[in-house]
Formats: sequence, C-alpha cells, structure tokens
Amino acid sequence: MHNITRMKIEKPVGDVFEAFVDPSKIGGFWFSSSSERWEEGKVITLRYDEYEAQGDIKIKEIDLNEKIVFHWGTNEEGNKVTIILNELGHSESIIEITEEGFNENDENIISVMLDNKEGWVYMLTCLKGYLEYGVHLRASLIH
Amino acid sequence: MHNITRMKIEKPVGDVFEAFVDPSKIGGFWFSSSSERWEEGKVITLRYDEYEAQGDIKIKEIDLNEKIVFHWGTNEEGNKVTIILNELGHSESIIEITEEGFNENDENIISVMLDNKEGWVYMLTCLKGYLEYGVHLRASLIH
Repeated sequence: MHNITRMKIEKPVGDVFEAFVDPSKIGGFWFSSSSERWEEGKVITLRYDEYEAQGDIKIKEIDLNEKIVFHWGTNEEGNKVTIILNELGHSESIIEITEEGFNENDENIISVMLDNKEGWVYMLTCLKGYLEYGVHLRASLIH
Repeated sequence: MHNITRMKIEKPVGDVFEAFVDPSKIGGFWFSSSSERWEEGKVITLRYDEYEAQGDIKIKEIDLNEKIVFHWGTNEEGNKVTIILNELGHSESIIEITEEGFNENDENIISVMLDNKEGWVYMLTCLKGYLEYGVHLRASLIH
C-alpha cells in the first residue's frame, strides 16, 4: 500500500529541490530543522521543535533537481519516500511524493494511511506557499 | 466512517466564517465561485472553473461565527459536512471539519477516504494562506 500526492508549484525544479536538501530552508515549510545538507548515504536528523520531537531519515538516492529517495529511520527498514520533480515549462514544476511500505494487515491501516496523507498534503501546500510567496504556514495542523 | 481535519488560523472566527459564507471570498481558497451567500435552507451551487465542474450543497444549519452544516447534493442524502469554529484567544481560531456518511462496505473505501482527506487538508491550508497572507494556493493539487 502506498500514498501518492502531487502538487503544481510555480517555481523551477531547482528551487523545489533546494527547499528539501538545504537545511536553511526546511524550517519554512516542514520540519523546524534538518541537521545537514541532504546527500546520498547520509543519515539526517529532522526536528519538530513545536512538538519536541525528532527523527532520522536515511538518504538512499539523490538525483540533482530530479529525485530524492529516503527511508524513515536510520536503516532501510522504515517506509520508503520517493520525491520526483518534473519541470512543466518555464518556472513551473510538478512535485510527486510517494510513500510506500505500509502494512496492509495493520488493523489501523485506514487511520495510518489517512494521517500519512494528511501530512503530505499539508507539507506540499506549505511548500507551495513558502516557495511562491515566502509565507510560513507550517505547524498549524492539529491532529 | 468519517474524516476530521483541524487547522489553527491566526485570524478571528468571524473572518473564517465569512470566508465560507460570503461568495466573494470562496474563490481565494476553495471553489472558484459560490452562487450566493450561505444561509440555512438554501441550495448553493459551487463551481470549479479549472475542472469545468460544478455541484450543489444544501445548507442544513448556520450558527453565526460558530458552525456550518451542509450536505453534498440538493437534498440531505449526500455526505454531511460539519464546520466548527472555536476562538482560541485574540485573533486565533481553530477550525474543525468533519465529513461523515461514507459507506464502509465500499470496496474502494480506503481510496475514497484518502481522496476526501486530501481535499480537506488542501482546502484548509489554502484557507490559512488566504486569510493570514492574502495568497492564493488553490487549484494546484493534482489528482
């Protein structure tokens, strides 16, 4: 089972790519901080200061301005997330995020999938606001 | 089965309420147009110009600045949507949207619920951007 979410962003793919890999930018739309620049093979610590929470991701693959693949957690056992960027013309991108690895037999599978979908749609809309207008909309979804 | 989505918006409840009921505002964050001011008992036509689509809703209940209840469709057989506004202090609101009426026996229930969740999270984040910063983020989620 997997969740796919897609958003059109009126910015070049390079801007969308940098928003994820540059640790000075993630606080504008998603986590409050990222421990260092995302590069293949690295383990990155992501913090959510507002929820006093943090977690690690393991970067599996990076193709400049095209693709980022990571797993939640420090090894490759957590769910896999694939971020694909497509240039849609001058200064317009489509970003597609797929998360896979959900357990179909989990008795709470529907609520797990819904919470996951909620997170991705919210982050992508915050990313759109941040890149297109420089506004910060993160950390206001109440679970 | 139901979907609940909650968002904190840094504006008074009156502003959030008006964004829904005033037909000059809905185009900033959700549908492209609303046929008239939302009032109890009315059938309102909502248009999505970008998708050349339109649909009706039947307004079941309106409590000024507090609550809006409607059903999708012209009667009360469609899913029921309840919008609750809570003032969280000076110029801060919590908006909670519940949609109920999903058929648990639908073989596509998971994808129906996920699509529905996607729509509410996206709309609420667009609403936050519109009310707090006057930015338009709607009509860019790709299904």
